[in-house]
Amino acid sequence: MIANLKLLLIAIELLFVTFSYAQKPVLVIHGGAGNISKSHIPDSLAVKYKAKLSEALRAGYAVLERGGTSLEAVRTAINIMENSPLFNAGKGAVFTNKGTNEMDASIMDGATLNAGAVAGVMHIKNPINAAIEVMLHSPHVLLSGEGAETFARAQGLEMVDASYFYTEKRYRQLKKAQERESETQGYISPWLNDFKFGTVGAVALDKQGNIVAGTSTGGMTNKRFGRIGDSPIIGAGTYANNNTCGVSATGHGEYFIRSVAAHDISALMEYKGLSLREAADEVINKKLKEMGGSGGVIGLDKNGNITMTFNTNGMFRGYIKQKGDPQVFIFK
Amino acid sequence: MIANLKLLLIAIELLFVTFSYAQKPVLVIHGGAGNISKSHIPDSLAVKYKAKLSEALRAGYAVLERGGTSLEAVRTAINIMENSPLFNAGKGAVFTNKGTNEMDASIMDGATLNAGAVAGVMHIKNPINAAIEVMLHSPHVLLSGEGAETFARAQGLEMVDASYFYTEKRYRQLKKAQERESETQGYISPWLNDFKFGTVGAVALDKQGNIVAGTSTGGMTNKRFGRIGDSPIIGAGTYANNNTCGVSATGHGEYFIRSVAAHDISALMEYKGLSLREAADEVINKKLKEMGGSGGVIGLDKNGNITMTFNTNGMFRGYIKQKGDPQVFIFK
Repeated sequence: MIANLKLLLIAIELLFVTFSYAQKPVLVIHGGAGNISKSHIPDSLAVKYKAKLSEALRAGYAVLERGGTSLEAVRTAINIMENSPLFNAGKGAVFTNKGTNEMDASIMDGATLNAGAVAGVMHIKNPINAAIEVMLHSPHVLLSGEGAETFARAQGLEMVDASYFYTEKRYRQLKKAQERESETQGYISPWLNDFKFGTVGAVALDKQGNIVAGTSTGGMTNKRFGRIGDSPIIGAGTYANNNTCGVSATGHGEYFIRSVAAHDISALMEYKGLSLREAADEVINKKLKEMGGSGGVIGLDKNGNITMTFNTNGMFRGYIKQKGDPQVFIFK
Repeated sequence: MIANLKLLLIAIELLFVTFSYAQKPVLVIHGGAGNISKSHIPDSLAVKYKAKLSEALRAGYAVLERGGTSLEAVRTAINIMENSPLFNAGKGAVFTNKGTNEMDASIMDGATLNAGAVAGVMHIKNPINAAIEVMLHSPHVLLSGEGAETFARAQGLEMVDASYFYTEKRYRQLKKAQERESETQGYISPWLNDFKFGTVGAVALDKQGNIVAGTSTGGMTNKRFGRIGDSPIIGAGTYANNNTCGVSATGHGEYFIRSVAAHDISALMEYKGLSLREAADEVINKKLKEMGGSGGVIGLDKNGNITMTFNTNGMFRGYIKQKGDPQVFIFK
């Protein structure tokens, strides 16, 4: 009888320990940083953005709450943003100089440091899913162009006609960019600074304490020459490491590549002892800014602390933690 | 008269200061790391490799000695290796699964953190030159495929027919790889570990104290799906920063991408105070090895200290400093 009672007490204690140590899940997302001011985004549009960000957060967080992996949460949240024409990823991707939509995406698993990415894909409905397949089912990290599509098709991913990605709004942006370009007579375009960058990204921490970060984008309006930005580059646009943090970036990709921004945030935490917020501030508001690079990052650390740091005047962003409601923001 | 004498003395002093403070130039190169043992490389072949490495070192160092930039020294050294069928870059690039040669290259300038890269190019005689053009004459960092070739052609680079890159030796390697692949029934090829990786790279420090790093490669034999390795990825295969070091990597690229190897070496120096050699040892012999990644790096720091660190049994490598003869090595 007493032995049984002891066993019961031990069982209760074990349950308690398990619950108190189980990581509280956290999800943080972005839908792009840039010149996003109230004059660009009327209230009616802001409502739509906030609703879609909230939907992505709720759906991703539901995965985490029922014990799902951070990988599934990131995929779920990003798929919702990829499927919305509000963001520059999947449906809603910007147009290249040739009038095509060429998308990039990447994913990294902080538990294994495994990673996957695709660049310049034109027929994969959800590029982040292709990045995940590369990570899980190939010996490679980065696949590009038609080869990446052949791989995605073989993995059974949903493929779509290129026309699926056509949106009137993005096409007008291309035409506007090309008009301004011909005025400035060159592709080094000063108008770039006027532009919103609508890359999407998500970073999740699951109950098992694993961090996953993912990013998906249509790149830069009017891009040419097979330009690849930071989004499919591990260390630049995406990085995750259970020992430090997970990060997804958005902005003028070339600067994020040159400053190896996402990995630099992790390195500042690991080697210099900075907090996630301090590290993100150092990279986004100091290093990147001094180089002339604009954009931002979202991230979270292994304890569930988050950051949403940007040096532009707006970033579509939000987070959700501890059964709370989604917290979503647009302007500074 | 006394005023003139004073001016003369000041001039002499200035000259002295200039000479004593002028950085002693250094150049370090590699021609790939891998399973390079004496049984694979007969003496007669070793002599050829050493002669070509010495030629590249001498030519690159001559640029530095006459006051040229580290950028020109890196270009000169890499061009010589790209033009030699001994290495897996330019002429001598390995074949893809489709029987094509698709090359990657990147360059980074440690003074400005500017960078350029190309991926999957098939008709540019010297891919490193295309990477340099991207850095100097485009607002982008990474261009890919046909778009990158269109850009290179517009910059006046030397273009060649795809047949220029055909070499009997590399074609036989492809056939051998494909035979083994059909035996193992999959593209996750255990034979990869048997393979030599012949990527080339160079890092230079010029008299002005500027560091430049560059890397050029044909990638992985039998690669498919538009696979991009670490060589064109800033932070993975190439990194340079005057405050820390310049690094060029060679090996199983996927591991270098996942570990953001080149930037990690720089970060360990900048944030943790490690020497270049300690940092390279930490990344190549600890972190990378624990992940199962094989390969190596060459690098130099702002004081001209060099490293040539690898966890394979050989790396074609060498350096030259202070008017000395080239020092070249192959085995451990």
